[in-house]
Amino acid sequence: MFRHHSQPLVSAPAETAVLALLLAEGPLSRVELARRTGLSSTAVTKAARPLIDDGYLYELPPERTAPGAGRPVNPLAVAPDREYFIGLKISAGELFGAVCDLRAGIRATAGRPLNECTPEAVAVQVAGLVDELLDADPAFRDRTRHLGVAVNGDVDRDSGRLRHSGLLGWRDVPLAELLAASTGLTVTVENDVRALTVAEHWFGEGIGTEYFALVTIGSGIGSALVVNGRLLRGAYGVAGEVGHVCVDPTGPRCRCGARGCVESIASTDVILAAVREAAANPRLTFGEVVGMAREGSPEACEAFARAGRAIGVGIATLVNVVGPERVVVSGEGVDAYDLLGRHIQDAYAAHVFGAASRCPLSLRPLPWEEWARGGAAVAIQALFPQPASPSTIGVG
Amino acid sequence: MFRHHSQPLVSAPAETAVLALLLAEGPLSRVELARRTGLSSTAVTKAARPLIDDGYLYELPPERTAPGAGRPVNPLAVAPDREYFIGLKISAGELFGAVCDLRAGIRATAGRPLNECTPEAVAVQVAGLVDELLDADPAFRDRTRHLGVAVNGDVDRDSGRLRHSGLLGWRDVPLAELLAASTGLTVTVENDVRALTVAEHWFGEGIGTEYFALVTIGSGIGSALVVNGRLLRGAYGVAGEVGHVCVDPTGPRCRCGARGCVESIASTDVILAAVREAAANPRLTFGEVVGMAREGSPEACEAFARAGRAIGVGIATLVNVVGPERVVVSGEGVDAYDLLGRHIQDAYAAHVFGAASRCPLSLRPLPWEEWARGGAAVAIQALFPQPASPSTIGVG
Ligand SMILES: [Zn+2]
Ligand SMILES: [Zn+2]
Repeated sequence: MFRHHSQPLVSAPAETAVLALLLAEGPLSRVELARRTGLSSTAVTKAARPLIDDGYLYELPPERTAPGAGRPVNPLAVAPDREYFIGLKISAGELFGAVCDLRAGIRATAGRPLNECTPEAVAVQVAGLVDELLDADPAFRDRTRHLGVAVNGDVDRDSGRLRHSGLLGWRDVPLAELLAASTGLTVTVENDVRALTVAEHWFGEGIGTEYFALVTIGSGIGSALVVNGRLLRGAYGVAGEVGHVCVDPTGPRCRCGARGCVESIASTDVILAAVREAAANPRLTFGEVVGMAREGSPEACEAFARAGRAIGVGIATLVNVVGPERVVVSGEGVDAYDLLGRHIQDAYAAHVFGAASRCPLSLRPLPWEEWARGGAAVAIQALFPQPASPSTIGVG
Repeated sequence: MFRHHSQPLVSAPAETAVLALLLAEGPLSRVELARRTGLSSTAVTKAARPLIDDGYLYELPPERTAPGAGRPVNPLAVAPDREYFIGLKISAGELFGAVCDLRAGIRATAGRPLNECTPEAVAVQVAGLVDELLDADPAFRDRTRHLGVAVNGDVDRDSGRLRHSGLLGWRDVPLAELLAASTGLTVTVENDVRALTVAEHWFGEGIGTEYFALVTIGSGIGSALVVNGRLLRGAYGVAGEVGHVCVDPTGPRCRCGARGCVESIASTDVILAAVREAAANPRLTFGEVVGMAREGSPEACEAFARAGRAIGVGIATLVNVVGPERVVVSGEGVDAYDLLGRHIQDAYAAHVFGAASRCPLSLRPLPWEEWARGGAAVAIQALFPQPASPSTIGVG
């Protein structure tokens, strides 16, 4: 990972295990920490000591579990305000930022339009946004060292380079280096869907799962997967490309060049184009198309039904191949979930295989703050040696 | 894992790491072992000691690497004949068995038809086959403790139960327990495609890969995946179901109930049925259909082309979702690879996404011994605490 000037906060396995577990799950007693991490009580106490001294952990007031149950228990807890993290989402026309605490709680937000979209211009505008966020509270400025960036495209997190982003039109940009120079912070860059998945796995519905998937629907359709408690990266950087799973070999041509990809049928852009064409009205907006479908327009309803079926088949494929414990569906497209949901669920149920049908789909609305929080979650991970995960620790 | 009477040979992480690396990669010096495992030289020496004393490892004659390069180096090697393992494949009409050495080298083979296919009758016939195999060499009888069984269907390896096998018509059979009772050996049971994948990952083309996939084609179409160096099991026991990936929502009904699964288009049974119908000859055999295609019969060629395209799209899906480093294609269907191969490769190339196109497909013929060897590989894994893998050890 590209780091501007900081080292992981923890490096010893015991410290890593204790901090990760407390971050993900909240206060725990030393006994419980020992049980969950497989460490001895002495090792837990030793691991916690420097983190308490540094103010990252503190002892809660004693809890006496039961009369005569022995020494009172002081659960350990993370001090969420010990350090802050800025999370950032870079979109084609806009920057979104959030200040988050150690447990990824959002403490302040800000956004601004991106007038100019070259990497250098964006670096300047990011510095401005970071300043605005840090100005919101003197504590933010004192205790923020890390910036996590969620960005569309193919990202090499280790080197901090954005290999390619179709949406931004960027290719091989040393983004972490540019932003570290413009902000003075340690910078971690991650693909936006993967960043969102990290946030959901560490601090949301995915807590404690070994296998977890998040699917985003909207103008693009993507997913990221957690396997054995770790983000699936793919040997060549490609994984979770549910948008480019072929569900109909005779289907429309996709922007990737193949035919019948989920995205070529279910992208909100495709839905819009189909309804515009069917209604012979090239000026329709997506909001109008949603309105038409809600009022029962057959063309609009059919476009959403077709999209929902393709998404449902794509998710079933993901589940049949990888076997996650649960799938969260998110993305700007979930605003139209009332139109898509039944078709997604029906197609999913029809195509999911055997016992994998027990894998639930759940819906997660995605306000833009969540994307920025994904960036912050990735920045929080930079406290740990990589790869790290709360859920792989303490198993067995 | 169900164990009849034995414990893992190694349990300490250092011993596990040293033995796994030597099994997978052959002789290595202590210095190389230390480098690859991240252990100190002292720790390597200490870990190797009991394995040398037990005869599992031995020191090769000294190799002086270069004049003046210091002390001569005695590489460590696995003694392949220290212990033998029986691998077994249970098919609908036949039992196949092999005696393998510690590095999964096949040392003897035997097979017999299965006249009666109830679990109890199979247990008796397995005991007979095991006796026949152990009789081949007195050393086999002295030094064989483990039986590994590769079987079609949904297997819970930990409990040794076969949850369900459509091919055998079995449901919830305590197979490890039955076979341990009839043979007196420690028994591990695994799904046949997963067992084959373990053999290929530990002792074949998958050595050292973190992400690896094996796809079997034939009457059934399956796959198993290695992710982060570990076999992907799925949260509900379902993973790698490439045969039930939907590639055409309007396609034929699959035996799983869904429409347009890869298997419903590309199974050898489906190819046979399609050509029989097109030729109005219900007596054609699969061998005859292969012959017709090789002689250019348009119906037969088209049936293979359709099957190959479905398999290629299915493999592209696997690769787009999971991102393996390489994919090995095997199974009894590869006998017809001259008829399928080009269509598989073309469809794969058309649908694989971005940089994942660098993931090569390679072909592996699959004589029945390989299935039995898969069983033996799973038995060899029982020497280790689970989960274990040679490739996750020593990274970083
Ligand atoms: Zn595509
Ligand atoms: Zn099916």
